[in-house]
Amino acid sequence: MSNPLAPHVALPKGPPAPTIIEAVQPSVDGGRFPIKRAVGEGVGVTASCFAHGHERVACAVRYRGPGDKAWREVAMEALTNDTWGAEFSVDRAGAWEFAVACWIDHLGYWRDSFARRTDPDDLRLAARMGADLVTRSAEGCGAADCEKLEHWARSLAEEGDVERLRAIALDADLFALAHPQAPRDGLTISPAFPVTVDRERARFSAWYELFPRSSSDQPGVHGTFADLDERLDEIAAMGFDVLYLPPIHPIGREKRKGKNNATVALDGDVGSPWAIGAREGGHFSIAPELGTLADFRHLVMATRARGMEIAMDIAFQCAPDHPWVAEHPEWFRTRPDASIQYAENPPKKYQDIYPLDFDTPAWQSLWHALRDVFHFWIAQGVQLFRVDNPHTKPFPFWEWVIAEVKRDHPDVLFLAEAFTRPHVMHRLAKLGFTQSYTYFTWRGSKAELTEYFTGLAQGESREYFRPNCWPNTPDILPYHLQNAGLGMFRIRLVLAATLAASYGVYGPAFELGENRPREPGSEEYLDSEKYQLRHWDRDRPDSLAPLMTRLNELRRGHRAMQSNTSLVFHPVDNDALLAYSKRDGDDRVLVVVNLDPQAVQAGFVNVDLEALGLEPGTAYGVRDALSGATYTWHGSRNYLRLDPAHAPAHIFALT
Amino acid sequence: MSNPLAPHVALPKGPPAPTIIEAVQPSVDGGRFPIKRAVGEGVGVTASCFAHGHERVACAVRYRGPGDKAWREVAMEALTNDTWGAEFSVDRAGAWEFAVACWIDHLGYWRDSFARRTDPDDLRLAARMGADLVTRSAEGCGAADCEKLEHWARSLAEEGDVERLRAIALDADLFALAHPQAPRDGLTISPAFPVTVDRERARFSAWYELFPRSSSDQPGVHGTFADLDERLDEIAAMGFDVLYLPPIHPIGREKRKGKNNATVALDGDVGSPWAIGAREGGHFSIAPELGTLADFRHLVMATRARGMEIAMDIAFQCAPDHPWVAEHPEWFRTRPDASIQYAENPPKKYQDIYPLDFDTPAWQSLWHALRDVFHFWIAQGVQLFRVDNPHTKPFPFWEWVIAEVKRDHPDVLFLAEAFTRPHVMHRLAKLGFTQSYTYFTWRGSKAELTEYFTGLAQGESREYFRPNCWPNTPDILPYHLQNAGLGMFRIRLVLAATLAASYGVYGPAFELGENRPREPGSEEYLDSEKYQLRHWDRDRPDSLAPLMTRLNELRRGHRAMQSNTSLVFHPVDNDALLAYSKRDGDDRVLVVVNLDPQAVQAGFVNVDLEALGLEPGTAYGVRDALSGATYTWHGSRNYLRLDPAHAPAHIFALT
Repeated sequence: MSNPLAPHVALPKGPPAPTIIEAVQPSVDGGRFPIKRAVGEGVGVTASCFAHGHERVACAVRYRGPGDKAWREVAMEALTNDTWGAEFSVDRAGAWEFAVACWIDHLGYWRDSFARRTDPDDLRLAARMGADLVTRSAEGCGAADCEKLEHWARSLAEEGDVERLRAIALDADLFALAHPQAPRDGLTISPAFPVTVDRERARFSAWYELFPRSSSDQPGVHGTFADLDERLDEIAAMGFDVLYLPPIHPIGREKRKGKNNATVALDGDVGSPWAIGAREGGHFSIAPELGTLADFRHLVMATRARGMEIAMDIAFQCAPDHPWVAEHPEWFRTRPDASIQYAENPPKKYQDIYPLDFDTPAWQSLWHALRDVFHFWIAQGVQLFRVDNPHTKPFPFWEWVIAEVKRDHPDVLFLAEAFTRPHVMHRLAKLGFTQSYTYFTWRGSKAELTEYFTGLAQGESREYFRPNCWPNTPDILPYHLQNAGLGMFRIRLVLAATLAASYGVYGPAFELGENRPREPGSEEYLDSEKYQLRHWDRDRPDSLAPLMTRLNELRRGHRAMQSNTSLVFHPVDNDALLAYSKRDGDDRVLVVVNLDPQAVQAGFVNVDLEALGLEPGTAYGVRDALSGATYTWHGSRNYLRLDPAHAPAHIFALT
Repeated sequence: MSNPLAPHVALPKGPPAPTIIEAVQPSVDGGRFPIKRAVGEGVGVTASCFAHGHERVACAVRYRGPGDKAWREVAMEALTNDTWGAEFSVDRAGAWEFAVACWIDHLGYWRDSFARRTDPDDLRLAARMGADLVTRSAEGCGAADCEKLEHWARSLAEEGDVERLRAIALDADLFALAHPQAPRDGLTISPAFPVTVDRERARFSAWYELFPRSSSDQPGVHGTFADLDERLDEIAAMGFDVLYLPPIHPIGREKRKGKNNATVALDGDVGSPWAIGAREGGHFSIAPELGTLADFRHLVMATRARGMEIAMDIAFQCAPDHPWVAEHPEWFRTRPDASIQYAENPPKKYQDIYPLDFDTPAWQSLWHALRDVFHFWIAQGVQLFRVDNPHTKPFPFWEWVIAEVKRDHPDVLFLAEAFTRPHVMHRLAKLGFTQSYTYFTWRGSKAELTEYFTGLAQGESREYFRPNCWPNTPDILPYHLQNAGLGMFRIRLVLAATLAASYGVYGPAFELGENRPREPGSEEYLDSEKYQLRHWDRDRPDSLAPLMTRLNELRRGHRAMQSNTSLVFHPVDNDALLAYSKRDGDDRVLVVVNLDPQAVQAGFVNVDLEALGLEPGTAYGVRDALSGATYTWHGSRNYLRLDPAHAPAHIFALT
């Protein structure tokens, strides 16, 4: 019974808290990375909270937003099996955090066990123990409440009549007063879990990409920002939120590529906008053929005036004549012959592109300069950056630079253009990119689409990876669109716009069904705008612009279509028909797409009534937002028929 | 291009390592708790390791055992999709740890890209870059190897002929020499992940529980350790590894319970062994009616001499006349009337049991005293503790005391007797209990057993929760055994012994089919040994002892039955037949149990050939270890028939 042995493991001064908090969700990698939310969204927190034996616990979520010193708190409710839950909302952009607190609920246990006691002596003793607990609560109260609680404690200690005592002890109002003020014995607080809160566009956005230099009305004439100004009304009328421009900087002349990626440019060839930098300047400059910095600022403001915004392309690489090559040779890697290392993937050489050496001994000055590129364009009014190939730069750079930018500019958003392996894409999203390009571009079959989008909507990455789905890009004419008719373009458009809360197209190539690959087996476009001007006949009667307009209108009109997490697929007994729904409260949209651009397809859908919040056995109305037709459906099994000559899909709003 | 802005987030001095390590497995709660292994087992480590762009990584697992200062290392191999894996073995008990290291493999990438180059100038330049890399490797080598590598580097730098250069550059032997010595640029090392390594009995054990006081050959006579000595050969012959004794301390006289838990004991009533402590002593003492401390030490040694060991019951609670109540009143909670708080669950009172107050201001002296209880009995030769109701004591106590004990005594094992909510049971296992009681006691149907054991074998808890499955205990006569015939006892015995690598029975009640509940609706035994002596007729011809013996013999003979992780269930088209297998290399056991104790059941099993490592289309032999019959099976679908009058199960060894 003595204690002859010195303790090996030091014990803390006070008894260690006996309460346990496990499995706090939502979290990414145990809190190493933030979850993401948009302003106005909720954070539904769950955790396993418990203590030993009969001890009862109480739990709360603490949270605070950017600049807050104090925590706000919301009580958690017991769910099943020692799991507790609570929700809070985030009302402004910036860095939030939350934590879970758990403590022993002595007062709550006392009240419950009091109600079960029967022995009079036992009741009187228990009442005196309750009096002590209530006195402790009184210490945390304001004067008026304190007086009430002290009176309650006295009554508990002094009342001798067992029935009166029972009534006093179980007084619900006094308990409700005392309980929140009870000291938090055995308190454990989890580590804080970070939340990145962005403005709404992070969650919901429709992007339109075009080459400004092709925006002249005159064939063969280099377009300018002024020409693009003229087109803004038309783009806004199509319902897009974001106008995304490939790089607008001076284009290198050394090793400039010709049309169709020819290694030698001819006189008059305009070069690739991603070959950034020439004697006129680099990442801080505007290509003179597009206009001036003032013209660009005007474009930014004119776009914003139409409810849209400009997304700027950030490609951290240099043409051989970029000013940095001469001014900062220390930012580039040299080869043993003292030449600068160009980009390569042996045996391929990209001699028109010099990668920056992020590992250079001068890495600090390089990283600061790249950060300043963002700051420079933010100062011109840009709040949205589409980052080119972020996966070819070190991850720590992105984590650092995005945090740097967002602390002062929490409304700035970043889209990661990384088409690469899943872990790499997910890591970029974890360390700060707001949105990410996806594999949607190559997912065509019902099975592929169902698996991929179920993962995006329900997998653990949903907390940090916000998909932005593109049927095409200037770099990618996927095989299913090559030499395909407009029917296939319609299908891909409907899928992108309705499966994903954020999507984009590279136009006018897309709405005009541009479908010619540079050569068989290539996903590059023939006569790609990356290397030459194009003139597009936007007035063609078969343009998909009206369908785009209608889809964007529907997206704006239905809150259900503005997020991804409610996405549910519904079985159809025909593999050419893909059915899925999204829901936000009473707003419910059910989409059925005919994946076959050639033939009529029909079948029975088995509507998942529970996912849509419908009672089995009751009738419900569906209105096809594309055709305007309305139907009354009963139960889950319903017949569908889609003729690609008339419509690629039903987009049913449930009424 | 200048850097006008001061950095907000400080950059480190050197460039941050660009390599990423994610999802290191096996781990428990991100490394907060150790995984568990037994001596001789492997730890198969996987992690997602990658870097940006074209950078190629190399990875290794570092590990070390108790007392090791230096790490050992094993190279990881690339699996699919940026996942890497390696395995190491643990060869002694104690606290191990491992970590994952990942770095940029410049030399490996250089070699591969060299092989793809075609341009002669390019090849010569690349060879010079390779020479620099090889020179760096040479710095890490011994003299002889260093000379070889320096010669290689010179050849690479100086050879002008492209074909000879190609042969030199791609020399496999020189690469194999240089590659392991390459400097680890961009090195990232994961946090260390802990591994608790136990002796083999932690993984594989058969337990036999009995009350020593019932071990006299004479009915009505209180048994002693000396009587138990006489029975050791018989228990050893049944093939058990562990002889587990309920508490052997002096039993309280105050508020002693009578037979069948009567609140008042009669003269001669022996009381419950879990009411610990009387004037003769408490947790450091032996009940005089059983013998002396010397007798106990003799029993410990005699048990060990028979290849078994004693498991001691640790119940941290006190009878009212336990010496601690007078000597250490500060270790108990008092009620407002100055009486000591007894155990209760209102309206139930357990006035014969005083809980210890783990939160007392004197908690440090209490915790140290309880630790000393373990040390005291370890000094008597005990290495195995079955802890009574650990879930009613604070979690931090167990984490502290188990770590205290195991640091000096890594061979000491702890079994948690916690039948409570899943999170609580799992937490106890995480924080150090070697083995855990399970819900097996109440799982009866094919669906229940399949779901529960699949979770135990394949769920994430398999890394830390080692099930020990009991068909009965002195506290639990489950409903399916109440008034049941021996057929049902046979079924439960086979299930426990073959589903779980560790199992136990409370005997001789079990093998004699003791089946009478104290009253309908109770899981307590009538005339429970907890409160009275019992005399068992162990020579009864229908005793299940021979079946126990055979099962324990099979368990010892088949490595497949000595762990849980290979458990696979095989479909049978009859819900009364449960089929499952375990495998360890070529040792394969397939068990089919008839869950119906009354009727013949037959059906077709669909053997999962892949799980058993069998080729489809080839014949394989099965020998029933219970009946001795042999069969040749072809393919997956095979007919089965079990008559409970003859055998509860087939236990097929595959040949």
